[in-house]
Amino acid sequence: MDRFDCVSPLDYRYYGGNESFFRKVHPFLSERANIKYCLKVEAALARGLARRRVFSMDVADEIETACANVTAEAVYEHDQRIHHYTRALVEALRDQLSERARPYVHLFATSFDIVDTALALRLRDFVREVVVPDLRALAEVLIRLALSTSDIVQVGRTHGQHAVPITFGFAVAGYVDRLGGRIERISKEADDLRGKMSGAVGAYNSFSLQIPDPEYLEAEILADLGLKPNRHSTQIVQPEHFTDLMCSVATCFGLLANIADDMRHLQRTEIAEVYEYFSGAQVGSSTMPHKRNPWNFEHVKSMWKEFTPRILTVLADVISEHQRDLTNSATRRFLPEIMIGFAEATERLTRQCGSLRVDTDSMRRHLDASSQASMAEPIYILLALAGLPDAHEYVRKLTLKGDITRSLIDAVLADPDVAQYLGEGTVEQLEALRVPERYTGVAIRKTHEICTFWETALGLDVSVPLSQS
Amino acid sequence: MDRFDCVSPLDYRYYGGNESFFRKVHPFLSERANIKYCLKVEAALARGLARRRVFSMDVADEIETACANVTAEAVYEHDQRIHHYTRALVEALRDQLSERARPYVHLFATSFDIVDTALALRLRDFVREVVVPDLRALAEVLIRLALSTSDIVQVGRTHGQHAVPITFGFAVAGYVDRLGGRIERISKEADDLRGKMSGAVGAYNSFSLQIPDPEYLEAEILADLGLKPNRHSTQIVQPEHFTDLMCSVATCFGLLANIADDMRHLQRTEIAEVYEYFSGAQVGSSTMPHKRNPWNFEHVKSMWKEFTPRILTVLADVISEHQRDLTNSATRRFLPEIMIGFAEATERLTRQCGSLRVDTDSMRRHLDASSQASMAEPIYILLALAGLPDAHEYVRKLTLKGDITRSLIDAVLADPDVAQYLGEGTVEQLEALRVPERYTGVAIRKTHEICTFWETALGLDVSVPLSQS
Amino acid sequence: MDRFDCVSPLDYRYYGGNESFFRKVHPFLSERANIKYCLKVEAALARGLARRRVFSMDVADEIETACANVTAEAVYEHDQRIHHYTRALVEALRDQLSERARPYVHLFATSFDIVDTALALRLRDFVREVVVPDLRALAEVLIRLALSTSDIVQVGRTHGQHAVPITFGFAVAGYVDRLGGRIERISKEADDLRGKMSGAVGAYNSFSLQIPDPEYLEAEILADLGLKPNRHSTQIVQPEHFTDLMCSVATCFGLLANIADDMRHLQRTEIAEVYEYFSGAQVGSSTMPHKRNPWNFEHVKSMWKEFTPRILTVLADVISEHQRDLTNSATRRFLPEIMIGFAEATERLTRQCGSLRVDTDSMRRHLDASSQASMAEPIYILLALAGLPDAHEYVRKLTLKGDITRSLIDAVLADPDVAQYLGEGTVEQLEALRVPERYTGVAIRKTHEICTFWETALGLDVSVPLSQS
Amino acid sequence: MDRFDCVSPLDYRYYGGNESFFRKVHPFLSERANIKYCLKVEAALARGLARRRVFSMDVADEIETACANVTAEAVYEHDQRIHHYTRALVEALRDQLSERARPYVHLFATSFDIVDTALALRLRDFVREVVVPDLRALAEVLIRLALSTSDIVQVGRTHGQHAVPITFGFAVAGYVDRLGGRIERISKEADDLRGKMSGAVGAYNSFSLQIPDPEYLEAEILADLGLKPNRHSTQIVQPEHFTDLMCSVATCFGLLANIADDMRHLQRTEIAEVYEYFSGAQVGSSTMPHKRNPWNFEHVKSMWKEFTPRILTVLADVISEHQRDLTNSATRRFLPEIMIGFAEATERLTRQCGSLRVDTDSMRRHLDASSQASMAEPIYILLALAGLPDAHEYVRKLTLKGDITRSLIDAVLADPDVAQYLGEGTVEQLEALRVPERYTGVAIRKTHEICTFWETALGLDVSVPLSQS
Repeated sequence: MDRFDCVSPLDYRYYGGNESFFRKVHPFLSERANIKYCLKVEAALARGLARRRVFSMDVADEIETACANVTAEAVYEHDQRIHHYTRALVEALRDQLSERARPYVHLFATSFDIVDTALALRLRDFVREVVVPDLRALAEVLIRLALSTSDIVQVGRTHGQHAVPITFGFAVAGYVDRLGGRIERISKEADDLRGKMSGAVGAYNSFSLQIPDPEYLEAEILADLGLKPNRHSTQIVQPEHFTDLMCSVATCFGLLANIADDMRHLQRTEIAEVYEYFSGAQVGSSTMPHKRNPWNFEHVKSMWKEFTPRILTVLADVISEHQRDLTNSATRRFLPEIMIGFAEATERLTRQCGSLRVDTDSMRRHLDASSQASMAEPIYILLALAGLPDAHEYVRKLTLKGDITRSLIDAVLADPDVAQYLGEGTVEQLEALRVPERYTGVAIRKTHEICTFWETALGLDVSVPLSQS
Repeated sequence: MDRFDCVSPLDYRYYGGNESFFRKVHPFLSERANIKYCLKVEAALARGLARRRVFSMDVADEIETACANVTAEAVYEHDQRIHHYTRALVEALRDQLSERARPYVHLFATSFDIVDTALALRLRDFVREVVVPDLRALAEVLIRLALSTSDIVQVGRTHGQHAVPITFGFAVAGYVDRLGGRIERISKEADDLRGKMSGAVGAYNSFSLQIPDPEYLEAEILADLGLKPNRHSTQIVQPEHFTDLMCSVATCFGLLANIADDMRHLQRTEIAEVYEYFSGAQVGSSTMPHKRNPWNFEHVKSMWKEFTPRILTVLADVISEHQRDLTNSATRRFLPEIMIGFAEATERLTRQCGSLRVDTDSMRRHLDASSQASMAEPIYILLALAGLPDAHEYVRKLTLKGDITRSLIDAVLADPDVAQYLGEGTVEQLEALRVPERYTGVAIRKTHEICTFWETALGLDVSVPLSQS
Repeated sequence: MDRFDCVSPLDYRYYGGNESFFRKVHPFLSERANIKYCLKVEAALARGLARRRVFSMDVADEIETACANVTAEAVYEHDQRIHHYTRALVEALRDQLSERARPYVHLFATSFDIVDTALALRLRDFVREVVVPDLRALAEVLIRLALSTSDIVQVGRTHGQHAVPITFGFAVAGYVDRLGGRIERISKEADDLRGKMSGAVGAYNSFSLQIPDPEYLEAEILADLGLKPNRHSTQIVQPEHFTDLMCSVATCFGLLANIADDMRHLQRTEIAEVYEYFSGAQVGSSTMPHKRNPWNFEHVKSMWKEFTPRILTVLADVISEHQRDLTNSATRRFLPEIMIGFAEATERLTRQCGSLRVDTDSMRRHLDASSQASMAEPIYILLALAGLPDAHEYVRKLTLKGDITRSLIDAVLADPDVAQYLGEGTVEQLEALRVPERYTGVAIRKTHEICTFWETALGLDVSVPLSQS
Repeated sequence: MDRFDCVSPLDYRYYGGNESFFRKVHPFLSERANIKYCLKVEAALARGLARRRVFSMDVADEIETACANVTAEAVYEHDQRIHHYTRALVEALRDQLSERARPYVHLFATSFDIVDTALALRLRDFVREVVVPDLRALAEVLIRLALSTSDIVQVGRTHGQHAVPITFGFAVAGYVDRLGGRIERISKEADDLRGKMSGAVGAYNSFSLQIPDPEYLEAEILADLGLKPNRHSTQIVQPEHFTDLMCSVATCFGLLANIADDMRHLQRTEIAEVYEYFSGAQVGSSTMPHKRNPWNFEHVKSMWKEFTPRILTVLADVISEHQRDLTNSATRRFLPEIMIGFAEATERLTRQCGSLRVDTDSMRRHLDASSQASMAEPIYILLALAGLPDAHEYVRKLTLKGDITRSLIDAVLADPDVAQYLGEGTVEQLEALRVPERYTGVAIRKTHEICTFWETALGLDVSVPLSQS
């Protein structure tokens, strides 16, 4: 069976067909990695028991060495026969051991002491080694983009309609701020994943046969792996920690999709304020040779659509009957896929945002086209401040009078009913609105503040140029 | 990259690790199969155009022959360079052609004329060749089970509480009836999947350059593949047909999970009315050697939890902006996974239901234990029919009086206030209720009617013994 | 408690705050309506039993009369005390009866014989009386829109990018075709909803005490209500019929959202090809007096986002343990909300599409702006037909050469390498492409065909002017 | 329109039909409450501007007084005319003001400065005043239950099969521990909800007309309301904070459903280890007078099924195009429903857990019935520790030999092949296993530790008896 025999698009395409991404993911989330991690937990259990003198450290060493030699193939061969994944792993491990050591593998433990602990470890490592670094790379790219466009005035859009001006950098700074928050949260949730070593129903029944303080032994074994236990477990680890992590990821996935959506709409032919990078050899359409589609941004949205509903599977797995039912067994095998889809979308979005072309002429053109309408707000407010009682309604009606492109300011200044309210200061302020790009509030200042904040908080340095990737 | 390097549990375990299932799925839903199906559509397009004399039949033949030689590897090599899946396929195909034929590949067509049509074909074939036959096999197994247990009296359970008696066969007949309906529906929906050959925006713009009646050409090409077009398409096929099929599958998946849930609860230690088959070599727990878990039934439920939420991705893809946006591109690649998860669960459930052990002693024991309480309904009704004004409340209060195991019938017969209402007929009927297994309504008759109906409707023959699988 | 004390936006706003919509929905889906429908089923049960001479027709008449007098208030008063909804209904009904008739209410039946049958009736009636007529009204509005714009050329858009031309009417005809299919399906699914009258566990246990052929009695009672039974039921009706209906609704909801999405994007300031109607008194923004937002189209999308995920609740309710568990009790009370949200969105969308303003100048302007790029497809195809071996790649490279607005046709005609392939016919065809609006394939013809088809199929008459609403 | 005219089960039943619950929810989440909260924000804005001397404090006072007099009816009357919710609110407020004050209402602000801030306030207050106190009440009830049953031995169940013993209190302590964690999290998320006062596109454009440091003004106004701003906003508050809160609620809802599921299964007729309280007047079935169903536990599960999928709506609202699109407008109105459904389920579960009847005889009986099988684990482990190389397989085969109820210990002791491994200590340990209730590990100690921990952490006092409710 090779890549093209696969049925999952992750395997045959997004992960399997992307060499560098494959190398990133494989050590944590492939099936080989899962087995490797499970063996890591078995070895830690053996070491922990040996430290407590349940058996000699020699036995633990033998087990640890054997762990390095167990293959996925061997495990699956046993599984085929006995139909029990963890026991198959144990048997494959026992095959590597001397008769003396064989009784001591997996001693006291239940399957999910191993499987759930290994899952926590894998996810935590993947978040630490791949997800967070990649999200930081995205943050860096976005900070650079925000800073370099902090004063590029762009018309703000609400409901797809021109509203009042912002700067493009300010919009990007919004992504930076939201992303910064997500990075901190995802990182924290991953660090808080828990393992267990409490036996078949969580009460340490088997451990208690030999160990007077099995909770402490559990803590020691998990500490060896860099994890902590919960205060209570059943046959499985409390589901809330996995769930919290996946919810944080789902929310961040939404942010990626939000950025992608904004960009693909800004690339609409009529708007054309930004462009995805398009290589010389690239084809946009199999029949329309001229097409330059925002297909990477669309892909990010598509991945979001694929993986977000799966959060409901994670939420359904919060329920497990009594000391555990097995209806979370297959589902938990699929859980890492959400993480992989998310990582793939992150990498893709980073690449696109890092090579994004911004068309400032288009931005200028749209700003100018709405320069009159966009000033309806400040005009109404200045009139209200001047004391005109129904300023909003007055200006609203003005904008209804056919030609919204005609100067609202001139219309106001020419209105004798309004004249009485217009002091010198107000007239001056109204005149200033003829240059709409000045009406951007504190957009520029905010952009810099936000970028500086996150550059520091995330420990980035955007003063040096990006290395070529 | 081999199976254990994969990240999807389908690839490394449920499909990739199950040889017979792999052989079933691979010809339709692997990536190799996808490419093969796309090429089948390209060949049909060429034949169709040749029949219309756009080019010679020789060219069409050459294209068809070349289609047989294009490999997934070649397609992906082009894709790596030009980042366009269908164009890569076209280029890989062109590589196999003489200079004369090369201009005519994919002529007039847009990518999704090929991709969506191929998807419809693949799904339809998979439903016809795998899903429906497997669901029929499940129906057959269930019909046999229903018939062989049609008169095994079992206590009916509502809210997990003993209600009034049924027969086990009657319960199974309920599954049969629901399953029969789903098979008909899934089959019909798959047969109604549509293809397209209408060009970049669905208006046959390119085809019209040369073909006066391109709708008819589309119909001819699709008929060649055994498909029909829609009355209208955009760049893509109308999403409703895929959605209807997947909704039918999702509903049937719920039925599988319902059966699995019922069985795993009936296997609870305290209930123990049915058992999953358990082989001699099989291990139930890595630490509790005595365990016999309903792990296959649990697996079916788990697969249901994994795949059902994905229907929301399918529903989200009903929306595609204007003549199409690409946010359904990745999602549609994942869509067949739902079908595979469903097929795997079907096969697993069939195997378990076919080897299910029914413990009639347990059923009898539970029936007896509730024989008094279960008669509260008929007693109240007979009293109401006899004219007792508040019969329900009267019996309800009787059952509250401590010992519900004491004979309700004796209590009623001994009550002087009720005596006046009891004619001879009623007393006789009440006495008959001392044999609770007679209070099963028409359960047995219904079971046979339903089984006969579906045996005929599905063209099964359950009179012959099952062949050994 | 009045409207503003409510917590559901349906009650305090979308249904409760819209008088005509309230009047439409109330007779079917309010709680008062639910009780009325349950009583209708009780009356039908009484009539059915009287016809079978279980009691006299006088009793049935008395029950039927009493049903008209039971109030929601009375039912809930009993419910407060006994904590059982259907029994409370029965008691409220018994309060209205003579001593003679009181024993015969609800005889043989279980709660869900009443509740599920009433739900099927309510939903079926609501679909027949409200949903389908309203969808037909939308179809009519869309057909009129399609016909009146069948030849308004608009640039086709894929990926938000200009592709090749269509007509606006052709795009609308696509909605018509998809909508027509959904109307037929929703109508059919609603007509196929099923009731039951088979007692506590579906085996007609209680009915069999007195009735030799209870399945036929069930069929008679349901026929009296215009419904059919299933071949099998448990304590509840088979879930598949409700589920099929709701899936069809969910898919159609997606179509509404698709239309709304397209329209709101076409109303973007830079595109401005269509506009929502905006009344003179209406306010677009509380601070920006000039705003004219596509807020109704946005609302339709928002309702879709709210109600679509609830299909998962419907799918979860496909599972009910054994003869039934009650975990579908609250959920089934919420189920009609999906229908109401859908009906509200339908009405809103119909109103907007009926008053939509189409800006043909904008459409023309965008077409012209892309007139060169849009011709890349036909040029490549004509060159391929003429025998140029790598026509797609040749044209793709042409479009890359800086100025895509420059005439591609001139560039091709001027290219000496290509000249050899250009026969007279091809040159003529190339010249014809200078008028891009001719490159619309069969868009106009298709539009008329589709509209005619659905006008007939749905029995509409669009030749008469719309009455003023 | 009264309660029974409503269509939402919340309004006509779960909230509208439960007086004490109504009183809890109404001040925060009714539509009246929403308007009240919006006016609170308008008043805070006025005070903030007056402090900055944009207008006199007299004007602010007048606005504040007027806010108290605006009714929902008045707001909706304006809304009917101008179709803009917030502007309608502003107009209703202006109706109450002198001509002098009227220009200054809502000055600088955009609608969602008010609406989103009010939503944050409402949700935060509801969590603080209702959700967290109610969850604490549940925690208290569960702690009391755990402590009072800490040493009631119960057979542990995995896969619905008897595993090894725990105590019932230990199982309940597991709920306590998970619940404690959720309370802390929900509380923290609610406290971290954010408001905004940054104008139409988040850049403080309008505020900047008059205020040099509008970010600080925003912070002042929000501080007045007890809220904080984000570092960046668009027209709306960053969606992540709402989302995080709702995800925490969804996860806790899963825990409630888990408890409810466990209890309703433990109430199965065959298990009967616990019972819901059942009042003397209560009816269990409309036709089966004897039924005592776990309908409240089933209700909790049903509410979980209804509300959990809605988290996808919340996740979809993480995306808002550019400076905002309105497709989150209706959805955000529905969002509080999740909170209400959750609060209702919490209250219901607390009531049931507080009056739960535990049948220790049943527990004992089940423990005894599995006393042999349950000892398979410790026997295998003791043999392994004694050096038997394949102890797990040895014991597994023993349990396969027909009668699992026969003493495993006797079988082991009688086996000559095993005898050589059995030292005196091991034999002693094996003999001890004849009393299976001793094999509960540290269940009792853990139960007390966990209860003490959360009693302290949540500031509860379970040493005093529960007051009668």
